[in-house]
Amino acid sequence: MTSASLLRDLRVRGDRLCQSLLELAQIGGTLKGGVCRLALTDLDKQGRLWVVEKARRLGLEITIDQIGNTFMRRLGKNLQLAPIMTGSHIDTQPTGGKYDGNYGVLAGLEVIETLNEHGIQTQAPIEVVFWTNEEGSRFTPVMMGSGVFAGEVSLDHAYGASDIEGKKVKDELQRIGFLGEQIPGEHPCGAYFEVHIEQGPVLENKEKVIGVVPAVMGLRWFDCIVHGFEAHAGPTPMDIRVDALQNAINIMQKVVGIANEFKPHGRGTVGMVQVFPNSRNVIPGQVQFSIDIRHPDSAILEKMTSLLRKYILQISSEKSIVIDLKEVSYFPPCNFDSDCVDTIRRAAIELGYSQMDVVSGAGHDAIYMNRLAPTGMIFIPCKDGVSHNEIEDAKAEHIEAGANVLLHSMLAFAKPVNH
Amino acid sequence: MTSASLLRDLRVRGDRLCQSLLELAQIGGTLKGGVCRLALTDLDKQGRLWVVEKARRLGLEITIDQIGNTFMRRLGKNLQLAPIMTGSHIDTQPTGGKYDGNYGVLAGLEVIETLNEHGIQTQAPIEVVFWTNEEGSRFTPVMMGSGVFAGEVSLDHAYGASDIEGKKVKDELQRIGFLGEQIPGEHPCGAYFEVHIEQGPVLENKEKVIGVVPAVMGLRWFDCIVHGFEAHAGPTPMDIRVDALQNAINIMQKVVGIANEFKPHGRGTVGMVQVFPNSRNVIPGQVQFSIDIRHPDSAILEKMTSLLRKYILQISSEKSIVIDLKEVSYFPPCNFDSDCVDTIRRAAIELGYSQMDVVSGAGHDAIYMNRLAPTGMIFIPCKDGVSHNEIEDAKAEHIEAGANVLLHSMLAFAKPVNH
Repeated sequence: MTSASLLRDLRVRGDRLCQSLLELAQIGGTLKGGVCRLALTDLDKQGRLWVVEKARRLGLEITIDQIGNTFMRRLGKNLQLAPIMTGSHIDTQPTGGKYDGNYGVLAGLEVIETLNEHGIQTQAPIEVVFWTNEEGSRFTPVMMGSGVFAGEVSLDHAYGASDIEGKKVKDELQRIGFLGEQIPGEHPCGAYFEVHIEQGPVLENKEKVIGVVPAVMGLRWFDCIVHGFEAHAGPTPMDIRVDALQNAINIMQKVVGIANEFKPHGRGTVGMVQVFPNSRNVIPGQVQFSIDIRHPDSAILEKMTSLLRKYILQISSEKSIVIDLKEVSYFPPCNFDSDCVDTIRRAAIELGYSQMDVVSGAGHDAIYMNRLAPTGMIFIPCKDGVSHNEIEDAKAEHIEAGANVLLHSMLAFAKPVNH
Repeated sequence: MTSASLLRDLRVRGDRLCQSLLELAQIGGTLKGGVCRLALTDLDKQGRLWVVEKARRLGLEITIDQIGNTFMRRLGKNLQLAPIMTGSHIDTQPTGGKYDGNYGVLAGLEVIETLNEHGIQTQAPIEVVFWTNEEGSRFTPVMMGSGVFAGEVSLDHAYGASDIEGKKVKDELQRIGFLGEQIPGEHPCGAYFEVHIEQGPVLENKEKVIGVVPAVMGLRWFDCIVHGFEAHAGPTPMDIRVDALQNAINIMQKVVGIANEFKPHGRGTVGMVQVFPNSRNVIPGQVQFSIDIRHPDSAILEKMTSLLRKYILQISSEKSIVIDLKEVSYFPPCNFDSDCVDTIRRAAIELGYSQMDVVSGAGHDAIYMNRLAPTGMIFIPCKDGVSHNEIEDAKAEHIEAGANVLLHSMLAFAKPVNH
């Protein structure tokens, strides 16, 4: 029998959670204090086994599905209820940090350890999952495991993805012992919560502890190729050049210009550039670059895209040059379940943490889960807003706060017995 | 005994020269009709052996120096005289054409074959040379062989240059069998002529057959590195980004802007760009790019450079970012020997070819030779002014005309016996 005051005063142990994060970060730890643990490598296998062993010690039941998503369940009293889930991923970027993804998984296990210690039973099961290959650094697409789970990425497509050495996802899953039998999608889910570092600077700038995430920005990725005319940099007068780079530059500036038109939520980034033939004394004949535009409002994202297309047509016609624009990825904006969002906000307020709404600019497994079940996300600040970087850092007090909000949000859905 | 009229009517065989060019172009020939024969590769070795074999058939004496420059000599009557030399290079850009460099070498051999056929002896020896690594695509610096020959590049520096796989010039020379024993600089030179495609559009636009080259533009090469701050493209608001690429773009535009201020001879090109980490969803943390500026007037070239430096300082201070600018090459404007230039002009006029003076925008081995001996250059038109491109092309009648001007210019210096 659990008293109301015990429940109200229930807190995770932040020191234990931070210790877990540091231990897991040693697997694939880098000299600069980051982590390099790419999906389905030997290091990922070690990391997975470390987490599974921890879950076993907590008495959890482990199941693995056909894409390697790994579920760790604490039974509930009512066997009819679908589990209230939390989780994230433990694969990292090549120069990743200790917190991205890992925090969401280990915070889930800390929630369970806290419930175990206080002998709190819930009506619904509570489950922690780590999804396969969220980062997409070694295998595309990103968010592969949750995408397959949600039926948005076919199992065949995921199995066929190969890394730069030609190694395939299915073979690598088998090799590391995480090719499970459970059919993705046949695993029920009552609700899904994910706690994550913000990976941006807003919470830190506003000095808030908890970010309540109502939505995730929509994202459109393009590859753009500008064709010019290769010629010798010396003898070719300026007036007759068709310099692919100088024309591409205009579009690169426009990408940022369009994002600036739709502040504060608009984003526009050119992250990858390849110049051909990339020779010091040759006027570039071709430039290929990536375009990443984001906005949480579908209509505005559409507007940004159409401004971009219009500008490219204009440049192409004014300069009489060929420009190819190919869309390579599209994630529409995602609005989380209002019950989940309200529950998170209420938990933060009741726990006495400062909080604010923060739209997520980054993709997360929670986006796919939102298509299957009521879903919500909790953010905590990270140092200087930096992520996907070995110097990624977060404060112990924030790590603890995020896990406490997760604990109370999940309890609100999983229902403690006798309350 | 050679009669005056035989000499006056002496002409090379254009068909034979064109045939040679096509044959050599098959070694490293590309699907698009160009040539990829990078310095000191297996293909360069094949090309060198093909040329040497041709020289042997013409009865020439072959010597190779320590940097792989290869000299092919037709003896003169007077053993005291230094050779009258011609030549160029046979290495190409990665997407190079059939004529750049190759034309100068094979035109030299055609001159000798013509003299052989007509039994014309000269007082001074006549010599054809191909210089090692003129293009600088695989190993820097460019014009390596002629630079070492002229004492402007040290042998140790050249030997130590390595390609992107870490292979070194000396090892590669040894591997392909062109590490000679002759000490560069101990090889005498009475005068040097080089015939080359213009690599620009001036002769074609003005419908002239022969370009008399009084001078070569000065050139300054820089590497510029713009430092920004790597961050996630999604969660990072536009206002707080330090996007290395967007800042680099301003400088890339300025390079072209400065060249445009000094038309018609000013040139400004950004040919190479590398973005770090070059990931689609990461704001670039660093961008490195090349800057190439040229002008035939020293004072203006200096002015262009100071405008560039001033602008970079301004951007660096306005945006509070670190920008490194490192000069990697400097060739001052080069004025060729007036005797050689006049001889070339006179030969063109006497042969009945239309001609005009054309300042060279490109660097050539002749620049280094000009520091050692009286030197001159002959240009012929190339199609659409295009070079450093697989579609580089030249007309048979122009190829023949240039070789005839070379023949008569060299004869004017080498002095036919009994005339």
